[in-house]
Amino acid sequence: MVRRSSVRVPSSTANIGPGFDAFSMALKEPYMDLSVEALEGAEGIVVDVQGPYRGLVPKEPQRNAAAKALKQLIELSGKRLGLKITINASIPVAKGLGSSGAEAVGAVVAGERVLGLDLTVEERIRAASSAEPGHHADNVIASLLGGFNIIDNSLESLTYLNLKPPENMGAVVIIPSFVKKSTDEARKALNQQPMLKEYVQALSRASMIAAAIAQGRMDLLLKLIPLDPFIEKVRADAGLYGEGYNWESLLEEKKKLLNEYGVALCISGSGPSRFLIYDIRRGMDRVERAVEYLSERIERMAGGVERIIYTRPTAQGAKITEER
Amino acid sequence: MVRRSSVRVPSSTANIGPGFDAFSMALKEPYMDLSVEALEGAEGIVVDVQGPYRGLVPKEPQRNAAAKALKQLIELSGKRLGLKITINASIPVAKGLGSSGAEAVGAVVAGERVLGLDLTVEERIRAASSAEPGHHADNVIASLLGGFNIIDNSLESLTYLNLKPPENMGAVVIIPSFVKKSTDEARKALNQQPMLKEYVQALSRASMIAAAIAQGRMDLLLKLIPLDPFIEKVRADAGLYGEGYNWESLLEEKKKLLNEYGVALCISGSGPSRFLIYDIRRGMDRVERAVEYLSERIERMAGGVERIIYTRPTAQGAKITEER
Repeated sequence: MVRRSSVRVPSSTANIGPGFDAFSMALKEPYMDLSVEALEGAEGIVVDVQGPYRGLVPKEPQRNAAAKALKQLIELSGKRLGLKITINASIPVAKGLGSSGAEAVGAVVAGERVLGLDLTVEERIRAASSAEPGHHADNVIASLLGGFNIIDNSLESLTYLNLKPPENMGAVVIIPSFVKKSTDEARKALNQQPMLKEYVQALSRASMIAAAIAQGRMDLLLKLIPLDPFIEKVRADAGLYGEGYNWESLLEEKKKLLNEYGVALCISGSGPSRFLIYDIRRGMDRVERAVEYLSERIERMAGGVERIIYTRPTAQGAKITEER
Repeated sequence: MVRRSSVRVPSSTANIGPGFDAFSMALKEPYMDLSVEALEGAEGIVVDVQGPYRGLVPKEPQRNAAAKALKQLIELSGKRLGLKITINASIPVAKGLGSSGAEAVGAVVAGERVLGLDLTVEERIRAASSAEPGHHADNVIASLLGGFNIIDNSLESLTYLNLKPPENMGAVVIIPSFVKKSTDEARKALNQQPMLKEYVQALSRASMIAAAIAQGRMDLLLKLIPLDPFIEKVRADAGLYGEGYNWESLLEEKKKLLNEYGVALCISGSGPSRFLIYDIRRGMDRVERAVEYLSERIERMAGGVERIIYTRPTAQGAKITEER
């Protein structure tokens, strides 16, 4: 019988260029540690939040993603017991790195053990997604399974494909300091309808990216990931990536980063973090210059950089680190 | 010095479910034989058409796809000489199997040899595509390179990815007897704009199909290829797949074919041919029953079936068969 289960959960990036609401990828750094513990003779859920981003994670169980996911699991188990969630909030919050998805995944993976459940992967995804606004499974699947994922949430049964990211893919996350509008608000910018041309560009580019991931074709990934034909365009022009940015200035950066430094730029999730991808085999000098260039631009045009994280994709999803 | 070059060119299917204007795949059957021969002391292009579909291929060089592609090559070469194209028209014409693309590819591959050119793959694709209405490269790339292809025609340079189709993928083409509206007319049905939901469905499903091709995941291919969220729907409701068909009746067929026979149905190119995909390892009985079911439906709802072709994808593109 497990009384306390601790898990480590990777952060994730979603969308990834043309792959809006379809692509997500787990990142080796940052990650989050979370534990669930049974409380003798109690009922209900208590949440304890520690770590560098503790001030940004709600502690009320009604508003906390881990607690909401755990509540689903308690209902599934039919058990009446008290549970304590301890979160080490080390993934930046509301920056497009899937922090609430990671919390929910951690609660499900640890909670399953403490509640003595034996869930299928689909049940884990469903329980964790139910805690996410809009029930988007993209970040959840990446944090749970690791790797690069393609998801279709619109079919009768959740359909997804989990791929191993290329070994030689490196990544950098540049986190602007400005506070973004909520993901819900970012969605409101999408009241435009795409043109048929954009529809075709999105599906052809996303398809090539997906196949290029499967084949480790970094050249194609670098070329195509910056080229979102619709969503980033609309959101950039709505000011969601910083007041000083529009699609033209973002595209200018993308082109310069690719042509001069061999680095692909896209927005992580609904932003505001910038996600950079590069080929590890081609050396770090150019990557560092690219980061310097982009950081200066963000300082000037969007009010500053909060944090820069050198990372890489990971095929490792949420993992139990300790149980007793 | 080559005086006469003969090539064999595979037919192809394009779109393939959600992959509108992005996916194409070469088919082992039907194929087309075509030769280009230098004519001593002459100038200009003459076209000789033989074979079962000879009545449907225009012989005037201005209207013949092979002649138009060859004209491009003559201009590239700067040579003044007479050329004779002999086409064995054995790919059904205007049925969605890329017959004009195959003709253009055959003329480029054979013509390059007779004209003593040394073209890059991109130059071959461009010359052959220039002979196609709308310059669509999808069928051309499949007939030239073989395999399953993903294409983005909208970038500064043509971008494509060539994949080997799964070994165990079998296919059937059912060709209705009715004469379709032209591809140009089929495009006119697309004056609607897709919804954001359809945009996301198209890119996520097409991406999963592309990665599933790369990984040989027949289960996902069978599930997702029937589910085009927009183009087939609009065209079905515009009556382009037969007067008796709309999206509802087409979708009914798709579901029955998948659930009862394990066969995926999509429209080949802009139609009217029906393209069926199945897993060879699961036996032919169910495939034959599926073909029987669908043929009866097409007889009843769209005026009859002209031809049924049992085939499979091929990784072999256009191939020189004889030179002298």
